[in-house]
Amino acid sequence: MTHTLDKLFETIATRRGADPKLSYTAKLLAEGVERCAKKFGEEAVETVIAAAAGHKAEVVTESADVLYHLLVLWAACGVEPDQVWQTLAAREGRSGLEEKASRT
Amino acid sequence: MTHTLDKLFETIATRRGADPKLSYTAKLLAEGVERCAKKFGEEAVETVIAAAAGHKAEVVTESADVLYHLLVLWAACGVEPDQVWQTLAAREGRSGLEEKASRT
Amino acid sequence: MTHTLDKLFETIATRRGADPKLSYTAKLLAEGVERCAKKFGEEAVETVIAAAAGHKAEVVTESADVLYHLLVLWAACGVEPDQVWQTLAAREGRSGLEEKASRT
Amino acid sequence: MTHTLDKLFETIATRRGADPKLSYTAKLLAEGVERCAKKFGEEAVETVIAAAAGHKAEVVTESADVLYHLLVLWAACGVEPDQVWQTLAAREGRSGLEEKASRT
Repeated sequence: MTHTLDKLFETIATRRGADPKLSYTAKLLAEGVERCAKKFGEEAVETVIAAAAGHKAEVVTESADVLYHLLVLWAACGVEPDQVWQTLAAREGRSGLEEKASRT
Repeated sequence: MTHTLDKLFETIATRRGADPKLSYTAKLLAEGVERCAKKFGEEAVETVIAAAAGHKAEVVTESADVLYHLLVLWAACGVEPDQVWQTLAAREGRSGLEEKASRT
Repeated sequence: MTHTLDKLFETIATRRGADPKLSYTAKLLAEGVERCAKKFGEEAVETVIAAAAGHKAEVVTESADVLYHLLVLWAACGVEPDQVWQTLAAREGRSGLEEKASRT
Repeated sequence: MTHTLDKLFETIATRRGADPKLSYTAKLLAEGVERCAKKFGEEAVETVIAAAAGHKAEVVTESADVLYHLLVLWAACGVEPDQVWQTLAAREGRSGLEEKASRT
């Protein structure tokens, strides 16, 4: 089953070139990388505030905003989700080994 | 197949209570929510800079850092990944309908 | 002569309790610390992007936005500018001595 | 009397070209604009967290960190403090008139 984030990225990728008046995603992509980076950064700030202020429900909704805008930023930069998943998977393996080594 | 992010979150969750000297994740979680929020925020800043400066390869590695620290922040706040995936899936459906409506 | 920032802080402080419909500053202060922190964080993100993208003129205007919103955040938190100036002045002296010491 | 921030900027400007091993400021400037933007962004995140978590004393010290790193960023970008003070002073005047107009 395709993961929510991969499905969301596919949707975002198909919005490129759509009418910016009908699609918020198309509007962001048309405005360029700096605009997409700004929106991602703003949502990250809101997630930080929700966490520091102890608002758990807001951490969930702000995290969803962060992830959506991160995926838009990837689309704007020409980054594919698999590149990021592979980077994480490679670290995961290494970090597991490192932890095992340090335990012995 | 379990998605990289869900597997990574499971690993992070099992690190809670591990020896902070042997596991960076355990160390972050032991330091509390504010510390985890700070690390997530810093990685978000680095992602923003990589994107604005046009360094595509760095956008990939910084995004991996952002996601790892976001998952740690969820663990610190008691947020489950499924809560965020469901929030995103619910929006995806709604936004699709809205877009269809606006096209007609 | 009073410095621009001290004058600006005085103006901000007098806006507290003004009609939020007539004054943007009064509106921000009425919305509370988290809202003021969010606005400051957003302007910091824009300054970071302007600098990383090499837009010098935008660094000037975004820095002005950052400083205005930082002063509003101080007003929201009950921080006086002199507390920050004194913290900076104390460090400046110390750092000067440290540098002299390290030069000898 | 010269304001703390203007004095601090003069000190920062004289550090340019100093030995990065003896001066933290020289080290930051030698590492370039992106590095200076990163440090400023990180301190902004810490200020946001201190404010959202209600730690007033930390808002003071983090604000001092933010301002120092903002001035370093200006030095890295070739921005003079007066450009920012003038931008703020020009807005202050305009905003005063706008508020008067809206009150009548």
